[in-house]
Amino acid sequence: MKDVAIVMGSISDLPTMQNSIDILQQLGVSYERFVISAHRMPREMIYFSENAIDNGFKVIIAGAGGAAHLPGMIAASTILPVIGVPVESKSLSGMDSLLSIVQMPGGVPVATMSIGKAGAVNAAIMATKICAINNEQYSKSLLDFKKEMHDNSVESGKRFE
Amino acid sequence: MKDVAIVMGSISDLPTMQNSIDILQQLGVSYERFVISAHRMPREMIYFSENAIDNGFKVIIAGAGGAAHLPGMIAASTILPVIGVPVESKSLSGMDSLLSIVQMPGGVPVATMSIGKAGAVNAAIMATKICAINNEQYSKSLLDFKKEMHDNSVESGKRFE
Amino acid sequence: MKDVAIVMGSISDLPTMQNSIDILQQLGVSYERFVISAHRMPREMIYFSENAIDNGFKVIIAGAGGAAHLPGMIAASTILPVIGVPVESKSLSGMDSLLSIVQMPGGVPVATMSIGKAGAVNAAIMATKICAINNEQYSKSLLDFKKEMHDNSVESGKRFE
Amino acid sequence: MKDVAIVMGSISDLPTMQNSIDILQQLGVSYERFVISAHRMPREMIYFSENAIDNGFKVIIAGAGGAAHLPGMIAASTILPVIGVPVESKSLSGMDSLLSIVQMPGGVPVATMSIGKAGAVNAAIMATKICAINNEQYSKSLLDFKKEMHDNSVESGKRFE
Amino acid sequence: MKDVAIVMGSISDLPTMQNSIDILQQLGVSYERFVISAHRMPREMIYFSENAIDNGFKVIIAGAGGAAHLPGMIAASTILPVIGVPVESKSLSGMDSLLSIVQMPGGVPVATMSIGKAGAVNAAIMATKICAINNEQYSKSLLDFKKEMHDNSVESGKRFE
Amino acid sequence: MKDVAIVMGSISDLPTMQNSIDILQQLGVSYERFVISAHRMPREMIYFSENAIDNGFKVIIAGAGGAAHLPGMIAASTILPVIGVPVESKSLSGMDSLLSIVQMPGGVPVATMSIGKAGAVNAAIMATKICAINNEQYSKSLLDFKKEMHDNSVESGKRFE
Amino acid sequence: MKDVAIVMGSISDLPTMQNSIDILQQLGVSYERFVISAHRMPREMIYFSENAIDNGFKVIIAGAGGAAHLPGMIAASTILPVIGVPVESKSLSGMDSLLSIVQMPGGVPVATMSIGKAGAVNAAIMATKICAINNEQYSKSLLDFKKEMHDNSVESGKRFE
Amino acid sequence: MKDVAIVMGSISDLPTMQNSIDILQQLGVSYERFVISAHRMPREMIYFSENAIDNGFKVIIAGAGGAAHLPGMIAASTILPVIGVPVESKSLSGMDSLLSIVQMPGGVPVATMSIGKAGAVNAAIMATKICAINNEQYSKSLLDFKKEMHDNSVESGKRFE
Repeated sequence: MKDVAIVMGSISDLPTMQNSIDILQQLGVSYERFVISAHRMPREMIYFSENAIDNGFKVIIAGAGGAAHLPGMIAASTILPVIGVPVESKSLSGMDSLLSIVQMPGGVPVATMSIGKAGAVNAAIMATKICAINNEQYSKSLLDFKKEMHDNSVESGKRFE
Repeated sequence: MKDVAIVMGSISDLPTMQNSIDILQQLGVSYERFVISAHRMPREMIYFSENAIDNGFKVIIAGAGGAAHLPGMIAASTILPVIGVPVESKSLSGMDSLLSIVQMPGGVPVATMSIGKAGAVNAAIMATKICAINNEQYSKSLLDFKKEMHDNSVESGKRFE
Repeated sequence: MKDVAIVMGSISDLPTMQNSIDILQQLGVSYERFVISAHRMPREMIYFSENAIDNGFKVIIAGAGGAAHLPGMIAASTILPVIGVPVESKSLSGMDSLLSIVQMPGGVPVATMSIGKAGAVNAAIMATKICAINNEQYSKSLLDFKKEMHDNSVESGKRFE
Repeated sequence: MKDVAIVMGSISDLPTMQNSIDILQQLGVSYERFVISAHRMPREMIYFSENAIDNGFKVIIAGAGGAAHLPGMIAASTILPVIGVPVESKSLSGMDSLLSIVQMPGGVPVATMSIGKAGAVNAAIMATKICAINNEQYSKSLLDFKKEMHDNSVESGKRFE
Repeated sequence: MKDVAIVMGSISDLPTMQNSIDILQQLGVSYERFVISAHRMPREMIYFSENAIDNGFKVIIAGAGGAAHLPGMIAASTILPVIGVPVESKSLSGMDSLLSIVQMPGGVPVATMSIGKAGAVNAAIMATKICAINNEQYSKSLLDFKKEMHDNSVESGKRFE
Repeated sequence: MKDVAIVMGSISDLPTMQNSIDILQQLGVSYERFVISAHRMPREMIYFSENAIDNGFKVIIAGAGGAAHLPGMIAASTILPVIGVPVESKSLSGMDSLLSIVQMPGGVPVATMSIGKAGAVNAAIMATKICAINNEQYSKSLLDFKKEMHDNSVESGKRFE
Repeated sequence: MKDVAIVMGSISDLPTMQNSIDILQQLGVSYERFVISAHRMPREMIYFSENAIDNGFKVIIAGAGGAAHLPGMIAASTILPVIGVPVESKSLSGMDSLLSIVQMPGGVPVATMSIGKAGAVNAAIMATKICAINNEQYSKSLLDFKKEMHDNSVESGKRFE
Repeated sequence: MKDVAIVMGSISDLPTMQNSIDILQQLGVSYERFVISAHRMPREMIYFSENAIDNGFKVIIAGAGGAAHLPGMIAASTILPVIGVPVESKSLSGMDSLLSIVQMPGGVPVATMSIGKAGAVNAAIMATKICAINNEQYSKSLLDFKKEMHDNSVESGKRFE
């Protein structure tokens, strides 16, 4: 059983969502990945969401662009925390994706990340933070990751000055 | 059997969506109204959408605000034309509602109207236009409505000059 | 007599609007295409709109960019349903096109699609949905199209997992 | 024969457009006012525009809100200069009106003013500036108006310091 | 020891953040609340964040408006998941708050909620979802809450039809 | 003495403003061109503006980008009509240029054109329209230009259908 | 001789700009206040700016709304640091004021504050910070002000917890 | 001891912030440069800010992009004037950076510059203006720089006309 499910609305979202996968691998977090379209596979989406707990997932990452309904609709069918990644859209640079994901009505939250690649990276870290509450190995991974970010920043600052 | 189904995501959308109802009544178009929340009643929403044709509807009007997923998710489960009304939201004045409804991906269109009351009025007229293609009575209603709008404008212009 | 009229404001809109044409062909829907500029051919535009019903059209698709007046002005002169496609503009990425098309006043609706290519694809599908209410062949085309979208999504998901 | 035609799309635009009327009166510029809706009276709009020169007008002021097609469509049917006033809209504060008026395609300009009351005031002044090129009385009015604005500002500054 | 820390940047954010408190109480989730300003109490903010784990918190909710730095700066000093609530700002309706919270760089995520009251409600639910992964009582609370939302929607729909 | 003064804030605006020059040449309208920076040459700008009438100009076209103060500041020092062209800016695509030019306070109008190339084209046409009120040759040029636009559109439509 | 000049474009900006005055008084910083309109008093504005150094000012605060040219135009005529306050505008909530002030071209900076009241408060503090570099009394005032803000925040937090 | 500290949140901001460095060198202003990340090095950031005065700095320039917390958080820990440069972000073109920097709450100002390169140039000039209040050499540099800008503009205008 895996801790994190990564769902994207279309295989065309993979260049963005691969960043989530890479970070989860780097942090040693177990995951499984899916392509499930809210608009082209609504029944499968609901089936997936309703069974996510029984399938052992603890967190769901969902990425989508434009009128990005996937994260919110998954969140409507499970009590698992859902993390949303606004994929950058062609015309409106992801502002439509962001608003479609973040502006959820009271009762059905989606934990929204920043637009595009940074958001996909952060979705993986947020998923790990959530699982780490009861997983010391993940906590250690996060502390190492945090220290490495810090040290790299300090180092680049030193070389620069 | 009714021609038009009017669906709103929450009873709080009624002050806006009542304008659709009023215009359909004025035009003599048969309708039935529903409250179905995409986020709180996803199974009912899909059930409604999948059975809309068998229930005799020809067009669906769906109004929602914020991360307004209702029109797009209904459109994902039926081949009936779906008309979306962006209900004005509190913080972002309906810009979030508009983008969440209109920016649908290729393959699953929503016929999006203007934000708020004017959009609800227009959804009813658009639904009637669609049904009127094969309904002479509706065509006549639309021609009368159009003429009345025209004459009222002319009249207000005359009084003004 | 054709079911769908596709009108664009300028031949420069063709790269976007060709997507409507391609989908109508794929769905087997009869259409005729026009270049009619609201601003450079206002008389022809009104003539076209006023005679669209007599010329046998059931739906009109109109694409335009910037201060995109074409869909709304056609809608002002016919009771046929008009579908608007906001063509992506150079400076404002189609946000101006979108607002100029969607924010119609009460009484004169335009069924607005998403910005750019996806919107042109969707305009063709929406036109077919409208015509399909009384055309079983079109209904079958839409069901096939829907199934194909679904199956392709499922398939790409399977290959991915 | 009057120099300036003031056209508004609806009598509901009068609270804004009255500011144009008041300033023209203050500057002693002759005008005539009209209610002509682009969407409800398209034929009258074209008739008005095509005959504006023969009717002696030198400039046209057109105010409209939302998908504000009136100024651009008038400009499409006359070589007279057309001044557009974006009337503040309910949901989007006139940003839709502004973009629908100002983002005209190359070939058909509309001289766009600021949103709302200040724009209506300025439309009257711009119309007067245009007519003043060949009207010494209007030039004198403008110089007086300019001097008065200046002196009032200076005066309010003096009282303030 | 409490599970959730609710932090707000200013006591003036309380009308919004009280909604988080109310929902946590309704769901039976233990919490503690704080006023810590990122800009007026930066040392206390860092001290709070660095010691949040040792103080037994599992999730942090942070609400702020305008250039809302609080959620992101807390997230920079802890590996606990941080949920951000964009409080509606005076001039820009919370769009500034939203972008300041959501657009975090890769490495330091904030789980961003919708603007204003709905976001505060959702922050409490998201915090509960996160804690519920290892807390059956919280899971039960969420299932009850979800069922109640569903039933209320169904009920309001029934009365309406 | 020339009829139109074309002023740009920087020689870097020339690729946009050359479109004004080209159209004035095509229409046979006399013009003179200037580089005057509002921010780097404020005294020259005021001197230019205060003497524009005495130098025989009838209309001023001013193009600028970003915090585009040039058109408004010229308008503050002359009663000649000033036409503003928002030059497309690097980060904000000319939305900053547009708002800085169009949102003038009551009393000091700038006739604002669309962003970028189309706006520069239109500035030239608007300048010609203004001068044409008392210049039959210019009127004829405009009528020819209008007819040519119309005929080209009709022609491209015919080839297309 | 006073250290700070506070300039506003219109007496109607006083409700916002009074906040600058209040804070300067609270911090014990000497100031003088002016109403100088960029658009109605351009000559006086340039005269003021060119003589600001000789008149003993060290910093200039300039507040304006809409197409807010005052701060940038003052900055064009002096080497003193100019602080700009975007006054909230009627239709666009100060977004126009903000962009007109902040998006200055390279070479002529304006130190831009937040929109409205908070921006006016901050302009006074920024002016004091600038003068405090060589004024120990002002430094002490700022340290006291900072401490008081900090203590008030701590205190409101304590009462709250 | 140097007068100006230039801080950037990441070495990836250098292409923008190098423009600040270049201008300070051109103006002969002493500076020191740092990479300090608000989110990856919060303790170092506070340490740097709290000691900036003792280290002899008179002004701090801080550049950052996205949820740009660096300038505001530095300003929270020092009474030195802080100048913020919104670095252009990938998806939202720096609008997120701008709002995150400029919309500071009352009490903690950041002197915000324009987005991107022009803003970095202007930050250096603003820093010099601030230091020049008590530094005649810097004043002379600024007057020379201003004159050179003026003369170059005049020259490019002359070659152009």
